[in-house]
Amino acid sequence: MKIGLIGLGKMGYALAQNMKDHNIDVVVTNRSLSKVDEIKQYGVNGVNSVPALINALDDKKVVWLMVPAGDPVDQMIDTLVPLLKAGDIIIDGGNSNYKDTVRRSENLKAMGIDFVDVGTSGGVKGARFGACLMAGGSSAAVKYIKPILKAIAVEDGYGYFGPSGSGHYVKMIHNGIEYGMMQAIGEGFDILKASEYDLDFELVSKVWSNGSIIEGLLMRMMHQAFSESQSLEGILGKVDASGEADWTLAEALRLKVSAPVITQSLFARYKSKDEAHFSEKALAAMRNQFGGHKIYKA
Amino acid sequence: MKIGLIGLGKMGYALAQNMKDHNIDVVVTNRSLSKVDEIKQYGVNGVNSVPALINALDDKKVVWLMVPAGDPVDQMIDTLVPLLKAGDIIIDGGNSNYKDTVRRSENLKAMGIDFVDVGTSGGVKGARFGACLMAGGSSAAVKYIKPILKAIAVEDGYGYFGPSGSGHYVKMIHNGIEYGMMQAIGEGFDILKASEYDLDFELVSKVWSNGSIIEGLLMRMMHQAFSESQSLEGILGKVDASGEADWTLAEALRLKVSAPVITQSLFARYKSKDEAHFSEKALAAMRNQFGGHKIYKA
Amino acid sequence: MKIGLIGLGKMGYALAQNMKDHNIDVVVTNRSLSKVDEIKQYGVNGVNSVPALINALDDKKVVWLMVPAGDPVDQMIDTLVPLLKAGDIIIDGGNSNYKDTVRRSENLKAMGIDFVDVGTSGGVKGARFGACLMAGGSSAAVKYIKPILKAIAVEDGYGYFGPSGSGHYVKMIHNGIEYGMMQAIGEGFDILKASEYDLDFELVSKVWSNGSIIEGLLMRMMHQAFSESQSLEGILGKVDASGEADWTLAEALRLKVSAPVITQSLFARYKSKDEAHFSEKALAAMRNQFGGHKIYKA
Amino acid sequence: MKIGLIGLGKMGYALAQNMKDHNIDVVVTNRSLSKVDEIKQYGVNGVNSVPALINALDDKKVVWLMVPAGDPVDQMIDTLVPLLKAGDIIIDGGNSNYKDTVRRSENLKAMGIDFVDVGTSGGVKGARFGACLMAGGSSAAVKYIKPILKAIAVEDGYGYFGPSGSGHYVKMIHNGIEYGMMQAIGEGFDILKASEYDLDFELVSKVWSNGSIIEGLLMRMMHQAFSESQSLEGILGKVDASGEADWTLAEALRLKVSAPVITQSLFARYKSKDEAHFSEKALAAMRNQFGGHKIYKA
Repeated sequence: MKIGLIGLGKMGYALAQNMKDHNIDVVVTNRSLSKVDEIKQYGVNGVNSVPALINALDDKKVVWLMVPAGDPVDQMIDTLVPLLKAGDIIIDGGNSNYKDTVRRSENLKAMGIDFVDVGTSGGVKGARFGACLMAGGSSAAVKYIKPILKAIAVEDGYGYFGPSGSGHYVKMIHNGIEYGMMQAIGEGFDILKASEYDLDFELVSKVWSNGSIIEGLLMRMMHQAFSESQSLEGILGKVDASGEADWTLAEALRLKVSAPVITQSLFARYKSKDEAHFSEKALAAMRNQFGGHKIYKA
Repeated sequence: MKIGLIGLGKMGYALAQNMKDHNIDVVVTNRSLSKVDEIKQYGVNGVNSVPALINALDDKKVVWLMVPAGDPVDQMIDTLVPLLKAGDIIIDGGNSNYKDTVRRSENLKAMGIDFVDVGTSGGVKGARFGACLMAGGSSAAVKYIKPILKAIAVEDGYGYFGPSGSGHYVKMIHNGIEYGMMQAIGEGFDILKASEYDLDFELVSKVWSNGSIIEGLLMRMMHQAFSESQSLEGILGKVDASGEADWTLAEALRLKVSAPVITQSLFARYKSKDEAHFSEKALAAMRNQFGGHKIYKA
Repeated sequence: MKIGLIGLGKMGYALAQNMKDHNIDVVVTNRSLSKVDEIKQYGVNGVNSVPALINALDDKKVVWLMVPAGDPVDQMIDTLVPLLKAGDIIIDGGNSNYKDTVRRSENLKAMGIDFVDVGTSGGVKGARFGACLMAGGSSAAVKYIKPILKAIAVEDGYGYFGPSGSGHYVKMIHNGIEYGMMQAIGEGFDILKASEYDLDFELVSKVWSNGSIIEGLLMRMMHQAFSESQSLEGILGKVDASGEADWTLAEALRLKVSAPVITQSLFARYKSKDEAHFSEKALAAMRNQFGGHKIYKA
Repeated sequence: MKIGLIGLGKMGYALAQNMKDHNIDVVVTNRSLSKVDEIKQYGVNGVNSVPALINALDDKKVVWLMVPAGDPVDQMIDTLVPLLKAGDIIIDGGNSNYKDTVRRSENLKAMGIDFVDVGTSGGVKGARFGACLMAGGSSAAVKYIKPILKAIAVEDGYGYFGPSGSGHYVKMIHNGIEYGMMQAIGEGFDILKASEYDLDFELVSKVWSNGSIIEGLLMRMMHQAFSESQSLEGILGKVDASGEADWTLAEALRLKVSAPVITQSLFARYKSKDEAHFSEKALAAMRNQFGGHKIYKA
């Protein structure tokens, strides 16, 4: 089986190399062709356009999208549809909102095209050397591409979760949990830093990465960062939120589930980028009005 | 009955004027005598020292302390003890920790001196024109000073809550609730400010101050602040936490009570003064390590 | 000017009486006619159907809807449209989502019908004796009905906030703040109840209602409840969330504003109705697995 | 070097076996002697009393305490002191509060006895087959026992963090982070359970345990639990808090560090055991008072 992969961002590039390493016959393309040229040197088959990529595939086309979530996915599907036929398979390996996935799947189903969602975790290294893959879609389509998924995933790191959207749904919740875990780690080091003990954070994060209850990839990443700089020098305390925790919260609201930790993790990131501080100004203003408390002036 | 008031900070000064207005025979002193001179012009009887103040009182001495919480209260008690005798009454009208109050009360009781705790709310205006007073201590002592308490409190704004510390305890929880209410208001205006509607905050806070479910003194203070500046100009978004919400949280921990809103209110203030942002740096560093996500550089 | 009011639930009924008291020529109808009969005895003009209500109005029709938010509003608008003409005004006095309001307003505008949103606060008593009203919509339409709004609002309790949806938007945020304030009060009494002091909650809430920083309608309601039962006997600890705080949170997410207190208030209500406790079971299961910690068995 | 280990609870028992496996000459005792008899069958040297244990050691005594935190540690130290001499070493391997550790260390130092704190993580399996150990105390004492610590720890899972208390401090923060991570996982599965997808939690937790960003011991424990029951059958949603997260929060308050996620994790546990639901009753009562909203009756 041949597979076409569209999109050579960090994750797509690494997945294509991963496929190549596992002798999967992958052909790639990308909007910026310099990335295509670059990966050719690794022995990956690259072409200059989407039609060329479709041409290079077997009769039953299988196309893996690694384009940014949102409009780019819809646009690429629009580009692909005229080039595909009933029985072909499109895989969305990006961080799409599961509701978009369900919508796209239904539209494509009307044309006989299968749409499989594959949530991908493990970061760039995972994509490169062994990913964690969460798949959703029709069981027949997922079964068809399963050999590829198994090949590029780490052992026991692949699962099929059910109908369309379930893969992206499980990935979305994964990210919500990730936010909570990261914030817990951040708070812990914040307290350690404020304490009177003069601690070696590289050592703390190393020890916690080995044999502790809180070991795992995130702590190893924390250790890696402290190895580079104990004071995280040069890094500003602004943290982007890339969308999936927002969706997790929207789900919590929709389903009326209490999710305090995931929410606070998201809000901590929002606050890290808030420069207006209007709520804090309001508090300071009220305190000043009723108690004559000191205001910090601009 | 005569009463001696020690401490002419904003609150003590206003309480002394309030007493004078209600024909209470109050004599005051203060570390800085300029405040004593100033209040004399309002007709309040002022003296230059604590011994002079004690001398100026009736045989059964009643002394109201309005000194900062913590060591200053202990020091003033140490100063007063040699000047007092069994049956005399010391009132602590400040924001003392209720545990300190219980300790002080027990020590003074051994000498026959009654120690009454009076939590005072309503801000400077309340202290001046009608306070909210929460009293704790021996029922006999509180009964003795009740005419004074009733005179300077607003109608139905005085209560006796039980043994020593109960007044300060009720005041502590009052402040915890206050933090939560203020933060709720701050968040509301923060969302309003971020919205696409171009709202008149002076009008919003005025309307909400009249007939709404969320009307009350805090909203009126918010209205007053927006009357002065719709954008709260010149105010930095840094908010001090004066201690009582911390104690409320310590109580929640001790009693194993969930208090998410009061806690988040306190943390929002801590965060407003956090300039190191170490937890946020840790998050940014982890994201960068596993996903190659952008770091904001210093 | 005559006004037609549709919907005699608790709020609509009270508003109609309020209008009558202020000599506003109001005619009402309701799905269940028994309510119409009942309010007629108060001297309010009642009719048996929507067409009859429209017939009873002046040439320029003004209709105030007090029907449940959501589909019922759309359905009533569908019923009204054939009976109205360009220049007429529909007012939505309910708790509609501002996005629905904007959509409805645009649809009606195409027919020349003005749609005014009026957020209503103050509870049933406010509706009856003096409400807090937050209006949005075209300035001409709001100006036309302003005498009515001013008449039934408390002094300074009416505001016009701008284009369509702004009234419901301000009301939505009002409710978010309300959730936060209520939760703060609840947490405070929870700690008081857990403490060793044996406090009189009726007295605490009365004192806090008079002259304190946290006084206001909510505390007076708390006092009223404790007057009826110090232990809130017969009340189960389950609290519904009626929707507007959910929307406030959705706004916070959309606008990337940190709103920890409003969120925790909402989650506390969700949790109060959660009987599955799946997250807690997951925690207990993990603890048991790694540490052999005790599990509470069903 | 010989070492005496006192306390054969789950953790102490496993540590003794671990030492035995690594050819460390360990002698043990326990309040209940049946545990001593049991471990003797594993080849561990057991004695019937603390004096017998001390007698069995070398001239320079090294005693490892695995008794419950709090009074039992003080009592055991009181028992040991008359049996020890200057230069001997007591190790506290339990979850003691670091402030107690500092106090005990100072008292023992006056007698020339070294007190080393060793925070132990990794659960029972870690204690048995390779623990994560966080040590604090005088560098000379820690250096002396380092061979033992290295032997029973997993590779890179041992660290020396500085003066007395630092080991327990690092372990305390570790537990705070653990609470946050666990709650994040719990919330994630709570949302998954509420969703319309019918997910296989055993598979979700297995996939997340392999190659994902949120992999680690906790997720593997979650997987183990779902392997036993997809619905966590028979487990009640009540979760104990064993103390260290409380201390972490107390530290956050003392140091004025915002720690929303760790706090909410702790509060979720408190709430899971709250049967009075007084705050929720207060909310329900307020809503009923102002809006006539439905109350759920007992």
